[in-house]
Amino acid sequence: MVNDVRIAGVGMTKFGASPERTSRDLFSQAAGEAFEDADVEPGDIEELYYGNFMGEFAETQGHQGPLMADAAGVDAPATRVESACASSSAAVRMGVDKIRSGQADIVLVGGAERMKNISTAEGTEALSAAADALWEIRAGVTFPGAYSLMANRYFHEFGGTREDLAHIAVKNHANAVNNELAQFNKAIEVEDVLEAPTVSAPFGLYDCSPMSDGAAAAVLVSDSFAEEHGLDTPVEITGVGQGSDALGLQDRASIPRTPAAEEAGQMAFDDAGIDRSDVDVAEVHDCFTIAEALALEALGFYETGEAISAARDGETTKDGEFPVNLSGGLKAKGHPVGATGCAQISEMTKLLRGDHVNSDAVSDASVGLTHNAGGTVASCVVHILEEVDQ
Amino acid sequence: MVNDVRIAGVGMTKFGASPERTSRDLFSQAAGEAFEDADVEPGDIEELYYGNFMGEFAETQGHQGPLMADAAGVDAPATRVESACASSSAAVRMGVDKIRSGQADIVLVGGAERMKNISTAEGTEALSAAADALWEIRAGVTFPGAYSLMANRYFHEFGGTREDLAHIAVKNHANAVNNELAQFNKAIEVEDVLEAPTVSAPFGLYDCSPMSDGAAAAVLVSDSFAEEHGLDTPVEITGVGQGSDALGLQDRASIPRTPAAEEAGQMAFDDAGIDRSDVDVAEVHDCFTIAEALALEALGFYETGEAISAARDGETTKDGEFPVNLSGGLKAKGHPVGATGCAQISEMTKLLRGDHVNSDAVSDASVGLTHNAGGTVASCVVHILEEVDQ
Repeated sequence: MVNDVRIAGVGMTKFGASPERTSRDLFSQAAGEAFEDADVEPGDIEELYYGNFMGEFAETQGHQGPLMADAAGVDAPATRVESACASSSAAVRMGVDKIRSGQADIVLVGGAERMKNISTAEGTEALSAAADALWEIRAGVTFPGAYSLMANRYFHEFGGTREDLAHIAVKNHANAVNNELAQFNKAIEVEDVLEAPTVSAPFGLYDCSPMSDGAAAAVLVSDSFAEEHGLDTPVEITGVGQGSDALGLQDRASIPRTPAAEEAGQMAFDDAGIDRSDVDVAEVHDCFTIAEALALEALGFYETGEAISAARDGETTKDGEFPVNLSGGLKAKGHPVGATGCAQISEMTKLLRGDHVNSDAVSDASVGLTHNAGGTVASCVVHILEEVDQ
Repeated sequence: MVNDVRIAGVGMTKFGASPERTSRDLFSQAAGEAFEDADVEPGDIEELYYGNFMGEFAETQGHQGPLMADAAGVDAPATRVESACASSSAAVRMGVDKIRSGQADIVLVGGAERMKNISTAEGTEALSAAADALWEIRAGVTFPGAYSLMANRYFHEFGGTREDLAHIAVKNHANAVNNELAQFNKAIEVEDVLEAPTVSAPFGLYDCSPMSDGAAAAVLVSDSFAEEHGLDTPVEITGVGQGSDALGLQDRASIPRTPAAEEAGQMAFDDAGIDRSDVDVAEVHDCFTIAEALALEALGFYETGEAISAARDGETTKDGEFPVNLSGGLKAKGHPVGATGCAQISEMTKLLRGDHVNSDAVSDASVGLTHNAGGTVASCVVHILEEVDQ
């Protein structure tokens, strides 16, 4: 009764600094690559859901839905979705809903963010709009500050050290070395992380994802559309989930827990009809090193208080049992916030298809998970991707 | 196979100036009224789609989905939708999709905008982010300017006068006189409109909708949920449509035509399985007087070039054959942009149920249409509401 949703094509700009490029320029490239990968035309698209967070601040540009449709050559209803750093995964989930409902057979989803055309101070201020303006922003909270509170409280409740966090950054940089779409293709050592300038204790520079420009896009189709048009669609989105929490940390029952991710994960597992133990590989939202540990615990891959050492122990490294952030993660791939969720979908699709530079690390993988968070995980969207027989 | 979507309850703050109230305060009131009207609890809600346009400018607040869920007492996935002045009707359409798909049985939709806590100049600048930043905003275009271009070109191509426009404002003010939720409860005369200070020729002050604070919300449910819970749901959303166009006027084939509204209207009529001649009453997006005429033509209620005189000729007045904007419209009810689309749904629901102050004007009506536009109609969302037998 419900249509299955296949990923027909994905596209993604190189993440990094391209301050001379507008978001419409970035998104049209990503969408064009997705059309080519899918072997469809822009005119085929029946709906666009587009994620963007800070266009008002960076480009004084709202109303980007129709703007991006126009830039991508799409003539269809087009809507911008904003869930802070989870904007484009919320857009992907809407695309899945739309196709499942039978109201569209082919949908373009994606997102873009332009961040490097403004100063780091302006960017930090813009990003803080994802926090609670009344209770956090005017108290001086920025995101490195908010996540460092979460890290310090985690250490206090469950243990863990800066060295544990450093191993997460080292792992994600190592994964990005050969990913030509990543912002940083540079391996780092634990010492580099520990000796880097402090941003907000316990975080040094290498604990924090960068400001980035970039865009990502994906063409989603119903299984019947794929069959009818002879499209090659080896990856299916079998599960979606989304959760919400109070925007401000002061309203949470626990600072180092992320129940919105717990809810999103459980919803996605139930939706896909799988158990978390079926997941072979994951891309999670490591905006700060601690966030990767919080994600792995919220999703139930680790008990609370135990994911902090997963990278150090080699469990989540490229050659580990359960590779996490093979793309390089937000830390090394980059974090153009409105593009990040769909970029995870793009990278995971390639990992499962076997055409990602790191696919060899997961040649037996058939189930992948993406976890994309907004703010201090007041929003979280989880997707389950599975290889399908065609 | 597809679930029918019923409107279980609606809520709306009084529109106007309440600069001391935050958007979370406004929305929680509207949502609370919708819950009460629907006879459901906040905890019943399975998804929230929330429209807001300029929160970044007015409150330095993005990421309002989870914020508003929290304010309304909702524990469910919550996403902000931004399509300029069509933000909350895009949110309503997503709610309809969600219920039709069978993935939720009860959804909260709505929107809010806070505009009067900043100056009119700041508000005008914020609103201009709905236009094309590269080609319109930096050329100095504001919305009164853009719509006055459309009006002047309309006059040039099809005829019409400032007096024709004045009758639209007079009609909408008359409709709002007894609407206690409207911003202006004041009747005006044609002379008042013509003698008012010029904003952007041909528009005077009374040709322009005001800056407003306000919120609106609606509880949507599947027909099976309504039946199971014994809810009173006499109004159904039977048709939805959305269209897109180039963001900037310079990229349009015709300045005084709005093809995004033509597409949205046709899509909604087809979806509902009705003809436009079946529509008994309409709420359309009269952000400026000319916009009401453009809407009526795009929707096919009038031939191109002929709607300009509809109000003057008494056809669209309260006692006319086809009443338009019985709520007072954006002109007199007010236009808190992120709330406007859902406010149209709220007002139309009451008109059809018979509990609106102006319901007596449409006591035989069973089919209503709402038309909500973003920017210079680069986005447009149309809904068809019908009375149903229970």
